Amino acid sequence: MVRTKGAGNGTVERIQDLILAEGLVPGDPMPTETALCERLEISRSSVREAMRTLASLDIVEVRHGHGTFVGQLSLAPLVDGLLFRARLDDGNDLRALREVVELRIALDLSVADQLVEIYRGSVNPELESHVAEMRELAGRRQPFPEADAAFHNALFSRLPNSLLRQLAQAFWEIHTTAVPMLNIAQADDILVTVDAHQAMLTALEAGDADAYREAVVEHYRPLGRTLDAAGRAETGAVRA
Amino acid sequence: MVRTKGAGNGTVERIQDLILAEGLVPGDPMPTETALCERLEISRSSVREAMRTLASLDIVEVRHGHGTFVGQLSLAPLVDGLLFRARLDDGNDLRALREVVELRIALDLSVADQLVEIYRGSVNPELESHVAEMRELAGRRQPFPEADAAFHNALFSRLPNSLLRQLAQAFWEIHTTAVPMLNIAQADDILVTVDAHQAMLTALEAGDADAYREAVVEHYRPLGRTLDAAGRAETGAVRA
Repeated sequence: MVRTKGAGNGTVERIQDLILAEGLVPGDPMPTETALCERLEISRSSVREAMRTLASLDIVEVRHGHGTFVGQLSLAPLVDGLLFRARLDDGNDLRALREVVELRIALDLSVADQLVEIYRGSVNPELESHVAEMRELAGRRQPFPEADAAFHNALFSRLPNSLLRQLAQAFWEIHTTAVPMLNIAQADDILVTVDAHQAMLTALEAGDADAYREAVVEHYRPLGRTLDAAGRAETGAVRA
Repeated sequence: MVRTKGAGNGTVERIQDLILAEGLVPGDPMPTETALCERLEISRSSVREAMRTLASLDIVEVRHGHGTFVGQLSLAPLVDGLLFRARLDDGNDLRALREVVELRIALDLSVADQLVEIYRGSVNPELESHVAEMRELAGRRQPFPEADAAFHNALFSRLPNSLLRQLAQAFWEIHTTAVPMLNIAQADDILVTVDAHQAMLTALEAGDADAYREAVVEHYRPLGRTLDAAGRAETGAVRA
């Protein structure tokens, strides 16, 4: 099933099959290189080559000095690929980055009803504290990526779909990494974003899905303006 | 920015930077291995190792006998990783596959208003023909993955967000590949799915976003029942 381009695909597949046949799970130690050579009857260099491909897909994880383990199957390869795509077309109206942001909005909106069910009538001091931290930093004109990530991760942590949580996190990471990488100036109206985080939380606690949806759209407005301004600027100013 | 685990990361990043600095775009030939060795002052084996990682991320593409090119930056690595994840937890209530299907539903619902704007008042013989083909095959109790893919790709082809289109296609591919791989029986009520495709199209042409959303949910219902039945079955029956 692996259609990864490059050499050694047959071996990549066979090692995947072996992981499944052995019933290994993420974090389990992989068989040694020698064992893989013997069992698959292939050369050490083929095994190494395949393991490198599997490592880049996070299907195996090399912990230097400790050995090789079944990987966490994270979305890190997606983040890497999309970040590179964002950098590649940075002269092209920041389209790749805009598309990532649109998908973040779509995901945030798609879980409105689920989040309302979860948060209605609750109090959430942890989420409040992340908003307070954002507000404090924004007041000093400091960026606040850690508090922002902490807010979104905590908000989504109670959703049952782990793929959705990881995808939301991957898109967050891409956009947050890409914005400074592309030398895009932070919006002046970043306090709007802070208020919108608060409004998202307040709406969910009040059980108001529509108000949550409005706050989500508001939350991304300063970023949209930032991207618009950067897209209009001369290429020289936007390029990393 | 590449946090890919495994050896040779510094080189992977430096080759990415070189692609950007040279202004290369997908499909352009990559510098030769020799040129890369000289320009980055690294060994041939380091270059090869890094190129293999870049190939598995679809950042470069090796066309055997033709050389190496800048890759299409597709979501193939995501598909590979998630397919493996689906196979890895196939004893575990098919959770990975369910999560993929939930994400498909979320994406399909998220574009309701956009699709209505695009298709309102239009006639779409191509989309109709895909539905007709599905109906014909379902009548003979044949699977219809090609017609199904063609329908969804054609429907989304007019959406401006290429990342969303690719993501929808990637999730389609994962679920369509995983279902037979996990030996999950096709639902008896697969005609419901055919009718739902027709209903999605009719709703969009009529400019009715709510009816489209209902049809989307209906569209996934037989699959949901299939996954429920498979999840309840003994592990031996579900395992690939």
